Amino acid sequence: MGSQSPRRRELMAGLELPFTAISIDADESYPAALKEGDIPYFISRSKAEAYAPKLTENQLLITADTIVWLEGKMLGKPHDEAEAIEMLKALRNKTHQVFTAVTFAESGKPLETVVDKTDVTFGNLSDEEILHYVHQYRPMDKAGAYGVQEWIGYVACTAMQGSYFNVMGFPVHLVYAELKKRNIIETQI
Amino acid sequence: MGSQSPRRRELMAGLELPFTAISIDADESYPAALKEGDIPYFISRSKAEAYAPKLTENQLLITADTIVWLEGKMLGKPHDEAEAIEMLKALRNKTHQVFTAVTFAESGKPLETVVDKTDVTFGNLSDEEILHYVHQYRPMDKAGAYGVQEWIGYVACTAMQGSYFNVMGFPVHLVYAELKKRNIIETQI
Repeated sequence: MGSQSPRRRELMAGLELPFTAISIDADESYPAALKEGDIPYFISRSKAEAYAPKLTENQLLITADTIVWLEGKMLGKPHDEAEAIEMLKALRNKTHQVFTAVTFAESGKPLETVVDKTDVTFGNLSDEEILHYVHQYRPMDKAGAYGVQEWIGYVACTAMQGSYFNVMGFPVHLVYAELKKRNIIETQI
Repeated sequence: MGSQSPRRRELMAGLELPFTAISIDADESYPAALKEGDIPYFISRSKAEAYAPKLTENQLLITADTIVWLEGKMLGKPHDEAEAIEMLKALRNKTHQVFTAVTFAESGKPLETVVDKTDVTFGNLSDEEILHYVHQYRPMDKAGAYGVQEWIGYVACTAMQGSYFNVMGFPVHLVYAELKKRNIIETQI
């Protein structure tokens, strides 16, 4: 699994299959014309392509990328506290979309990518609550500047449509289905 | 907080407020005519009423109850493995509702109860997958025989509409809003 995200590693571990987490140094830029799910689609494939030549037979590489999409704009990882605060102010009292793309790579086979989308509704957040979260949790490693499984998710997230795990950054049900399709999960007993 | 559920205690802890967890011995029966959210509403109030006389001034008691509602029928906690397997077979490939009621009790004040509802869609689950889950995770303490935060939630839960935390048994955003209304959360800094 090519991911440095502890959340993704934890979710992958929940599927009860042995795996190794590696870190991939890939270019995460993308064509400016891309929108919504096409952005993480492109980036997760860039990550997979960066590592694919090193894959040996019988190895499966899984990469992922997550973005937040708010009213026509992409929110990635904030660069600093000020940008994190700005993102959270933009998200409050609105519904945004979370897109995660997961790419599967095997030696000698074409890449396969699945994309999941979840609508997330945030209720009101005071400036004090946003400051508290950003100072205490430092969400600079998270797209849209929040972790739904953290305090902010508890107090701000009033509704969701789609998969919660996708919002955490890894749509495990899609990963599981793809692994099953590839006969990697033969039986669960 | 009057709950023996480790999941509820964990979610409550995530709100960053000091609290004590107690166990309340209450009658969890309810009138047979009740439906959907009225069932946990009734039971969470029974739990609160059982403990309320012991409340001292400045104490706030929080109780909760969760049920699963599938096509006009209530699924509570399964009594044994056979019933758990039966429940999961009934849930696969369908959308069900999860209702959680939370009751707030303070000495000398009327009880207040909030109810949350989430639609949860399960994809396909093989008999083997259901057996694996029931044997490994023993979900006899969970309404509907599943924990969404466990392996079964990862592989079966394809979509959700509403709050994920409600499905875990405790709609933290509603609890937070109620505590704010009561001035229990003054500031987060």
